[in-house]
Amino acid sequence: MNKERLFLEHKAYKMRANSLLMTSAASSGHPTSCLSAADLVAALFFHAMRFDPKNLNNPNNDRFILSKGHAAPLLYTVWHELGLVSEKELFTYRKIDSNLEGHPTLRFPFAEAATGALGIGLSIGAGMALAGRLDDFDFKTYVLLGDGECAAGCIWEAAELAHFYKLNNLIGILDCNRLGQSDETVHGHHTHRYEEKFAAFGWKTFVIDGHNMQQITDTLDKARKIENIPVMIIAKTFKGHGVKKAEDKLGFHGKAFKKEVNELVAELEKSFPEAAAFEPKSFEWAPKIPELKSGAPGNGLGLGDPTFEFGQMIPTRKVYGLALRQAGGASKEVVVLDGDVKNSTFAEIFAEKYPKRFVQSFIAEQNMIGMATGLDRRGKIPFASTFGAFMTRAHDQIRMAAIGQARLRLVGSHAGVSIGKDGPSQMGLEDIAMMRALPDSIVLYPSDAVSTWKLVEQMGNYTKGISYLRTTRMETPVLYENTQTFEIGGCNVIEQGENDKACIVAAGVTLHEAFKAYQRLLQKGIEVAVIDLYSIKPLDVKTLLEVGKKSGNTVITVEDHYIQGGLGQAVAAALVNTGIKIKNLAVTKLPRSGTTQELLAWAGIDADAIVRAVQNL
Amino acid sequence: MNKERLFLEHKAYKMRANSLLMTSAASSGHPTSCLSAADLVAALFFHAMRFDPKNLNNPNNDRFILSKGHAAPLLYTVWHELGLVSEKELFTYRKIDSNLEGHPTLRFPFAEAATGALGIGLSIGAGMALAGRLDDFDFKTYVLLGDGECAAGCIWEAAELAHFYKLNNLIGILDCNRLGQSDETVHGHHTHRYEEKFAAFGWKTFVIDGHNMQQITDTLDKARKIENIPVMIIAKTFKGHGVKKAEDKLGFHGKAFKKEVNELVAELEKSFPEAAAFEPKSFEWAPKIPELKSGAPGNGLGLGDPTFEFGQMIPTRKVYGLALRQAGGASKEVVVLDGDVKNSTFAEIFAEKYPKRFVQSFIAEQNMIGMATGLDRRGKIPFASTFGAFMTRAHDQIRMAAIGQARLRLVGSHAGVSIGKDGPSQMGLEDIAMMRALPDSIVLYPSDAVSTWKLVEQMGNYTKGISYLRTTRMETPVLYENTQTFEIGGCNVIEQGENDKACIVAAGVTLHEAFKAYQRLLQKGIEVAVIDLYSIKPLDVKTLLEVGKKSGNTVITVEDHYIQGGLGQAVAAALVNTGIKIKNLAVTKLPRSGTTQELLAWAGIDADAIVRAVQNL
Repeated sequence: MNKERLFLEHKAYKMRANSLLMTSAASSGHPTSCLSAADLVAALFFHAMRFDPKNLNNPNNDRFILSKGHAAPLLYTVWHELGLVSEKELFTYRKIDSNLEGHPTLRFPFAEAATGALGIGLSIGAGMALAGRLDDFDFKTYVLLGDGECAAGCIWEAAELAHFYKLNNLIGILDCNRLGQSDETVHGHHTHRYEEKFAAFGWKTFVIDGHNMQQITDTLDKARKIENIPVMIIAKTFKGHGVKKAEDKLGFHGKAFKKEVNELVAELEKSFPEAAAFEPKSFEWAPKIPELKSGAPGNGLGLGDPTFEFGQMIPTRKVYGLALRQAGGASKEVVVLDGDVKNSTFAEIFAEKYPKRFVQSFIAEQNMIGMATGLDRRGKIPFASTFGAFMTRAHDQIRMAAIGQARLRLVGSHAGVSIGKDGPSQMGLEDIAMMRALPDSIVLYPSDAVSTWKLVEQMGNYTKGISYLRTTRMETPVLYENTQTFEIGGCNVIEQGENDKACIVAAGVTLHEAFKAYQRLLQKGIEVAVIDLYSIKPLDVKTLLEVGKKSGNTVITVEDHYIQGGLGQAVAAALVNTGIKIKNLAVTKLPRSGTTQELLAWAGIDADAIVRAVQNL
Repeated sequence: MNKERLFLEHKAYKMRANSLLMTSAASSGHPTSCLSAADLVAALFFHAMRFDPKNLNNPNNDRFILSKGHAAPLLYTVWHELGLVSEKELFTYRKIDSNLEGHPTLRFPFAEAATGALGIGLSIGAGMALAGRLDDFDFKTYVLLGDGECAAGCIWEAAELAHFYKLNNLIGILDCNRLGQSDETVHGHHTHRYEEKFAAFGWKTFVIDGHNMQQITDTLDKARKIENIPVMIIAKTFKGHGVKKAEDKLGFHGKAFKKEVNELVAELEKSFPEAAAFEPKSFEWAPKIPELKSGAPGNGLGLGDPTFEFGQMIPTRKVYGLALRQAGGASKEVVVLDGDVKNSTFAEIFAEKYPKRFVQSFIAEQNMIGMATGLDRRGKIPFASTFGAFMTRAHDQIRMAAIGQARLRLVGSHAGVSIGKDGPSQMGLEDIAMMRALPDSIVLYPSDAVSTWKLVEQMGNYTKGISYLRTTRMETPVLYENTQTFEIGGCNVIEQGENDKACIVAAGVTLHEAFKAYQRLLQKGIEVAVIDLYSIKPLDVKTLLEVGKKSGNTVITVEDHYIQGGLGQAVAAALVNTGIKIKNLAVTKLPRSGTTQELLAWAGIDADAIVRAVQNL
């Protein structure tokens, strides 16, 4: 064991030295945050974890998530020590053409998650642990946390859910180095405060000296044997450990050392003489390779055609639930999460049929998205739903999931003022703007049952990034034949004549207002085209342009969303320079309680408003 | 005391009856969530709280926040019982012209905060308690929480900060009624689990029977006397208490009773016979009116002109700090919050001079925004800063603050890809889209020191809603005279000639790229206009139109933000139908690490890209 200890200390020593050198070479980065956690990471990869470094696809591999993403050099150096990142590549850190970015992204093939917004790693880990549980794999998920990020509420959301789901295959290691970026953390080195908190949340806790390799490995051994509850190892460490000038001192966060770095590396050698002098080849290390299992089949979602009746009244949110249930049968990888509103989003229809694959996430949307991200990484097809308004609660997690190229399927119900009496706090009015501004996202907004069904299928098969579906609270009539197809980036021209004065572009509840307006205008002898813009991102610019040109060169958009960043401004941006006149009808002021029709009128997005807009042309 | 007890029980009985009747009349609402908490609210308003119901402006009044906002009828009925809301108004609940909305907003004059997105009330209360502490007022802030919302991480962010700031003037009452919307809560009626958690977070806890009036009032009396730490009273209650059909049963959340409501009210009378029969006039109740104090002077922020030198290199984020320090001297109401990045946002410049008015909010942005909302309500002028990227963490709180018409001054630093090597997780690329889509918000984006200084002053004086300032990491040269003025909704035409081929519209870092492009184009004999669009919302459409028309009828926008919902699409939407051709240069794909100039080039928003765009016209 003494030799293993020296071997591990040697690995930590080398990771410390390289972390110093890499950050200096990049003239930026967070070396002191690496120095505190190097012993922990060395022990994890070279002692505790069972994984096949050469077959990352073995679903039985243990997984490691660097929640404190600013310590990215540790992640890169440990894979260098494993022989899978060359020294040359190591020193591309933070360069424009490097996969070794300032904070880990999925461009680094050994990263399990994009991190760097603090507090999100534990949720992602919980999602992975849950995926392992669902598939009866016995891998462990390790998450390295900083102490500063424990101020973030999402940590406690994850802590609660991981205990609720008895995820003893989730093991956190808290690098308690006392110092945040700008101040001492709330609890400093009072490790017992973290212990009290995690214990109160139902976790098994250990408090250790994070620079004592024997204690670290002994505790990691114990942690693997805990049953029924997740484990948090709280490791007292020193930020900048091994470099006197910076050790345990404020003012060195995120500061790369300059010319003096070679002296500091030499100092490391003196700080850890045995570790530095150790000849690693004298210890025969080999990875603990777990049994090879086969992974998720990754089959697509074929839902088949639905069986709605034309004109049937049914809310799109309910159809989401029905389509989910079908999806659950089509693929055993479908997992559904919901934030204590499954009877409003209708995720309950899935939950009733597939209770084991339904994750009640309670009122903790940040953790819900984080867990969905982890589930995706482990081969699941996660759908996560809540009110569109409450997707804002998880905006940062969604943003980070997009950076991590996660294939989340998100569904926001209760879109817009049309929900009525519950008032503005419950109205999703910024969700389109939020979801559009994510790289590689798609934004879908169906108006009837058939399109909802077909778009849920499309989401299941969309694998480039996040897909978002916006559903409506109220009942709307079925508009389409069950065989109709709906493509990502498409739209449907529903009404079009020879003498159209304008083209009304709408989606969701306002499409039905557009129909009413169409009828009323027809009675007045005015013809208009009507387009169902079910795909807001990407947009079918070609069709919008063609129909717009034929329709008095005028497009009127109508949407139940704030005007900023919504459907109308997306269309306006797409049709700019085409000579088509554009009028956007949207919500432009703070809504209030009322009935659906009162509020659509109040916002100027009902049939009357559309009729007025056409008549005012 | 027995008589007071009966009086309080009578009030609770009446509030229960009216909650049932109001929700039935409105055909919607959450009656069972009111029935569980009626005793608690009656005891708060008619026993514990010291306040002058007829002078809400007395800054010494105790305050009440209904964090479980769906129990809004309780708030309305208690003010009815206080004689300040007529029965007629009570039954306007949820109607389009009523101030009594589905969830409380500031339209109801006795509401202290807009609530309804769960989990946010405790932070708002912490902000109010901190305001009281800063002004040496001795009022208490009471927050009524639901048990379901304790799953939300922001509760634990607030719990941590309230303990850190020793806010013993903050008293939470947890209505532990066991049932969420769609399922039993995580802890059900295991009140000890909440006790363990809040105790671990450093709070004094009491566990009581929330339907035993004597226990409630005794505990509220004790709670007022706790020193140094905040207090959480965990009250075991039953959802739907008093109505057998629904009591303690799932499936009744957010369901108004229909015709049977009169029977249920009659049942209440049998459930609480003594309370129902009690003649309230037989107990002489009078409010406990606190000493009248004078409130905040509400003076504006006059910063005076700064003293920068033309061409001086200084990052706008640093000028934010300098202006804040000046603001701190201009008004003692200025309070600054920051999420452990004060040395990056430069809020530290304020913190050094006014440490007592600086709130270190750690990595808990949701609570930071919630506290700022509470500080605003108690007469403070809160500025809150973090990286623009991390404002997304608090999107829901910001959304709710906008609904509550809070005058938050928010500052997001490290905008865009130009931050360089830290990578995408740290880049604010969706903040403009997010902040534009808030009712009554303004969005400002200065490019130099003088404009930053002047815009901070404007934010201090903007009182209609949320103001957002976007700052840049890198140094930029001073462009303006110190006497230059900057108006909300303005812009500056910096370059304009007689033969401009296009108008370049930019802000922040890209304005400096526009200058470089201007010079290079000039060398090629091509003239362009350049506009500093420091106010993105509202927009100076008139000037954009005038200059655009004169500049080859062409506007080229350049921004360091995702294209969706950003500066360019705001300009495109504003200039639609004017015949002006528009080209948007913005970030359109997932960024990576690199140097500032490499990334500006990679994104196609640097001087070269602008030159190319002009040449391609």
